[in-house]
Amino acid sequence: MSYETVLVEKTEHIGIITLNRPEKLNTFNIPLGRDLNAALEEMDEDHDIYVVIIRANGRVFSAGIDISIFPMRGILEYRPWINLMEKMTLTISKMKKPVIAAVHGVAAANGAGLVAAADLAVAAEGARFGLTAIDVGLFCMGPAVPMDRCVGKKHCLELLMTGDLIDAEKAERIGLVNRVVPEEKLMEETLSLARKLAAKSPLALQMGKEAYYTMADMPLEKALQYSNEMFCELCTLKDAEEGVRAFLEKRSPKWRLE
Amino acid sequence: MSYETVLVEKTEHIGIITLNRPEKLNTFNIPLGRDLNAALEEMDEDHDIYVVIIRANGRVFSAGIDISIFPMRGILEYRPWINLMEKMTLTISKMKKPVIAAVHGVAAANGAGLVAAADLAVAAEGARFGLTAIDVGLFCMGPAVPMDRCVGKKHCLELLMTGDLIDAEKAERIGLVNRVVPEEKLMEETLSLARKLAAKSPLALQMGKEAYYTMADMPLEKALQYSNEMFCELCTLKDAEEGVRAFLEKRSPKWRLE
Amino acid sequence: MSYETVLVEKTEHIGIITLNRPEKLNTFNIPLGRDLNAALEEMDEDHDIYVVIIRANGRVFSAGIDISIFPMRGILEYRPWINLMEKMTLTISKMKKPVIAAVHGVAAANGAGLVAAADLAVAAEGARFGLTAIDVGLFCMGPAVPMDRCVGKKHCLELLMTGDLIDAEKAERIGLVNRVVPEEKLMEETLSLARKLAAKSPLALQMGKEAYYTMADMPLEKALQYSNEMFCELCTLKDAEEGVRAFLEKRSPKWRLE
Repeated sequence: MSYETVLVEKTEHIGIITLNRPEKLNTFNIPLGRDLNAALEEMDEDHDIYVVIIRANGRVFSAGIDISIFPMRGILEYRPWINLMEKMTLTISKMKKPVIAAVHGVAAANGAGLVAAADLAVAAEGARFGLTAIDVGLFCMGPAVPMDRCVGKKHCLELLMTGDLIDAEKAERIGLVNRVVPEEKLMEETLSLARKLAAKSPLALQMGKEAYYTMADMPLEKALQYSNEMFCELCTLKDAEEGVRAFLEKRSPKWRLE
Repeated sequence: MSYETVLVEKTEHIGIITLNRPEKLNTFNIPLGRDLNAALEEMDEDHDIYVVIIRANGRVFSAGIDISIFPMRGILEYRPWINLMEKMTLTISKMKKPVIAAVHGVAAANGAGLVAAADLAVAAEGARFGLTAIDVGLFCMGPAVPMDRCVGKKHCLELLMTGDLIDAEKAERIGLVNRVVPEEKLMEETLSLARKLAAKSPLALQMGKEAYYTMADMPLEKALQYSNEMFCELCTLKDAEEGVRAFLEKRSPKWRLE
Repeated sequence: MSYETVLVEKTEHIGIITLNRPEKLNTFNIPLGRDLNAALEEMDEDHDIYVVIIRANGRVFSAGIDISIFPMRGILEYRPWINLMEKMTLTISKMKKPVIAAVHGVAAANGAGLVAAADLAVAAEGARFGLTAIDVGLFCMGPAVPMDRCVGKKHCLELLMTGDLIDAEKAERIGLVNRVVPEEKLMEETLSLARKLAAKSPLALQMGKEAYYTMADMPLEKALQYSNEMFCELCTLKDAEEGVRAFLEKRSPKWRLE
């Protein structure tokens, strides 16, 4: 498939989605919301893809929502746009495959929300992150949901209320991104991380990701019971048997293809 | 209104509450619990105030509970005092306006809980923070609630179980305060942060703050649905329209007064 | 009592449990799962013990699960082993006494889960931590539960999905351990921390620990109501009265023995 506002490609079992509205700073209008979700879902169904990277063309990762859409004529017009734009957080959490954001330039508002929503994130030195909607009389309510789970209360409220941009080093320090690399190495380092994940058992990653997002919403005791049952199931699968055998035989495992 | 144990003033749409029992290290007795809550609620209802700062007179921010109150004659006597003292955490979370703590000296036990409960916090270099009740055979159960949401499990339990004070730099590093400034610049820097928030749309801040504290208690999918609906509503309001228009016209927005 | 796979000793009201399958890198088989839980519960019932340390003999703290157990004949065989292995997280959260992990070498998979499950953790310089099960076609679903509460989403998913080991400094920085000390001082520093906790009111620690783990699963308002009631109860107890009195009289408190 091809899309209007994102580019999709595949390499070494890695799916790469590139936000491609550079002239609009990759801001989210209805087509970008729709295309990003559709591309994520397409790659999640593609048995030849094990890991997904989200990157961006142009000077910035994403400047957030496309405010040229304002004003619409009321809540009935806003709702479909907003639901599409925010859907990616839920989509990523429900995907079978790990999603890595590769961020350069600026990730603002829903752009920062996309970074927070990703399972992992790599930032280029010089990248900046912010929940900037407050500066136009709005508030990053949707992006705050995954952000709070990455950075905790004080950092999340500071981003939300000040609208300030933080640099990549601070983003790493507070838990919004996993690592910071020189900008010219952003894709090289992100691909290297993606390749590492692509070499794992796809089934273990899939069940594990589902278990993570499910237990993260549960109280401790229920989360433990649930996780134990999921782990029991995982233990009985072929990949576990093969993984353990390969380890004991000091060889690389051959994972079951889906 | 005026209060027995706190001072209140207003400047540039910023309400300043000063804990004012310096001779008792701003410890929480019944009047201070009552006055702080009443002052917070009064400022929240004052349409001329957009942001609230909590600071303290004397050598320390607050040394926690006023233990000279011990022993009372039983749970029926303790309960009203404790409920008043702890009420500020809920009050702050339900207020329409951002609350910033400006902390110098020591913030111990309920003093540290007040810092954790605040939306944002600025610390003076040299300030120290601790959940110290364990040292008198008690335990900072109430302060632990907002603290855990700022700093995570291991740091929270260490503060609770050891009773140790940590310095401002560590408080910043673990997410209890947003920034550390020279003591002589504490009010200047806190006012500067407050002015920044006071220049935002009061209505966006109010709906945003409510959305933050509400979604923070929800599982992911429900949090996203809720946040989207709140954001839809916000989009239809005059401040959003004006904010976006001002941005496009490269001018300062004029927010609707409440 | 004595155990097959752990050593137990007592000193200065501190219980020390030593994982003792060094030839198997302290990996969790059924006996170690059973013994560790039994030893924890035994020490929790011992009125002469106020604090518990978990340490390990041999080159590493624990390399995780004992994969020589694979393959079993199905879920009915896996379940008892897994439930025993994972039970320690719930056991520690329900214990009356603080539990400190003293970690050297490597804490991998369930070994890292044990560190995350502990109330506090001290790491030796050079110690490394990882959720490594993904490398054998499994996934650290159980260990992820306490880990997520220590380190937040991005760090937890990175550990889970990459299987990488992180060093002690990073473990401290992201909130998995409380402090890092030279390896030759690991027990000295851990004992020093344990002695500090052993000098507190055992009853306050017990009620406080229960309150912490209970409120951590609650939404804000309910957590505050619950914590206030627990604090009211605590205030009426003899140790609170004695603690406050001792503080005012500038002497050491004498806690009620259980």
